[in-house]
Amino acid sequence: MPATPGVPAATVGRLVTYLRLLTAMEERGVRTTSSDELAGRSHVSAFQVRKDLAYFGRFGTRGAGYTVATLRRELRRILGLTRPWNVAIMGMGRLGQALADYPNFDEYDFRLVAAFDADPAKAGLPAGGLFVEGLEVLPARATELTIDLAFLTVPGPAAQAAADALVAAGIRGILNFAPAVLEVPPHVHVEPVDLMAGLKRLSYHVVARAEDDAA
Amino acid sequence: MPATPGVPAATVGRLVTYLRLLTAMEERGVRTTSSDELAGRSHVSAFQVRKDLAYFGRFGTRGAGYTVATLRRELRRILGLTRPWNVAIMGMGRLGQALADYPNFDEYDFRLVAAFDADPAKAGLPAGGLFVEGLEVLPARATELTIDLAFLTVPGPAAQAAADALVAAGIRGILNFAPAVLEVPPHVHVEPVDLMAGLKRLSYHVVARAEDDAA
Repeated sequence: MPATPGVPAATVGRLVTYLRLLTAMEERGVRTTSSDELAGRSHVSAFQVRKDLAYFGRFGTRGAGYTVATLRRELRRILGLTRPWNVAIMGMGRLGQALADYPNFDEYDFRLVAAFDADPAKAGLPAGGLFVEGLEVLPARATELTIDLAFLTVPGPAAQAAADALVAAGIRGILNFAPAVLEVPPHVHVEPVDLMAGLKRLSYHVVARAEDDAA
Repeated sequence: MPATPGVPAATVGRLVTYLRLLTAMEERGVRTTSSDELAGRSHVSAFQVRKDLAYFGRFGTRGAGYTVATLRRELRRILGLTRPWNVAIMGMGRLGQALADYPNFDEYDFRLVAAFDADPAKAGLPAGGLFVEGLEVLPARATELTIDLAFLTVPGPAAQAAADALVAAGIRGILNFAPAVLEVPPHVHVEPVDLMAGLKRLSYHVVARAEDDAA
């Protein structure tokens, strides 16, 4: 597949949503869908759905919509979810431990293969089905295990140094849970995760419902 | 403020993004902005920005755009971020502990006021600046501390019972980290958090960059 330049990050986020909807439709035995239906369930316009998909080609038939199984397969391919991904956790504090224990980790063949921490006292501790390893073995283990991606779960002040170590070891994608903006070379992608963003959506809905009740 | 019915969840998510952009602009001393600029930085169309804001009134001046400070203040008000929110954590496993320790928790006056766990062995353990309390005191403490919102961080099989206990104690908003779909009464809002969604966005970007490098 040729590279697809200029796809907005928000489009990628919506493709993940469309894929989730298509998976649920397939599980319910639904065979076809439309940009209107995908739009309604993901709270964007049908035009936005068609525009998001148009970055990658033509998937539907005018008037007939989309075949659920076909579009789901195409989105899996576009999102890189048809191959296995070897994932490491960097930083085995409480968040790192919680992610190691998280269920459904291997959905779409994401495989947790290693867990690292800078603190020698943590080496050898169990983490999910693994044991924590020291940073000194990261380069060798990254090659040996072909680690592709990493969760970065260290404290904010330690985040850049930990990211540098991951990049030096050849990791190409970092899911950044640390409250820090990271500088990485252009061939590495950082995806930030804001654990508190949900609180702001929640406060809106709680206020809106209280007003509904009072109305 | 009258209730605003029918605002899509995705609009609320985008308002949170616009507010973050406006806060960054204000910190840089930027005084005015436009729907084009907000659109470009949040990767949606300018029409979408105007439509999202139009649910709540008229904020800009045709041709002159938006005053950053005014729009930021209005979005804070709309999102319910001008008042304090008392938040509890339900489930003091590793994820609960990690959230209790998370920095910048009190951004926009979210206040962590209590931490609960069903396991009596955890009662009294430190959690952030608090001590873990047993479920038997939840109803009394919820009233005494006027707890508004809760992080639900229990294992999936325990999630519905924990949510029921929160609802019975008067909590009106739940940020659900548990891998479970919750049933709650209509006056309660559940906001799901998928810790693994970021992995799917990450895999897309890593594949896209590898193809760019190969091209």
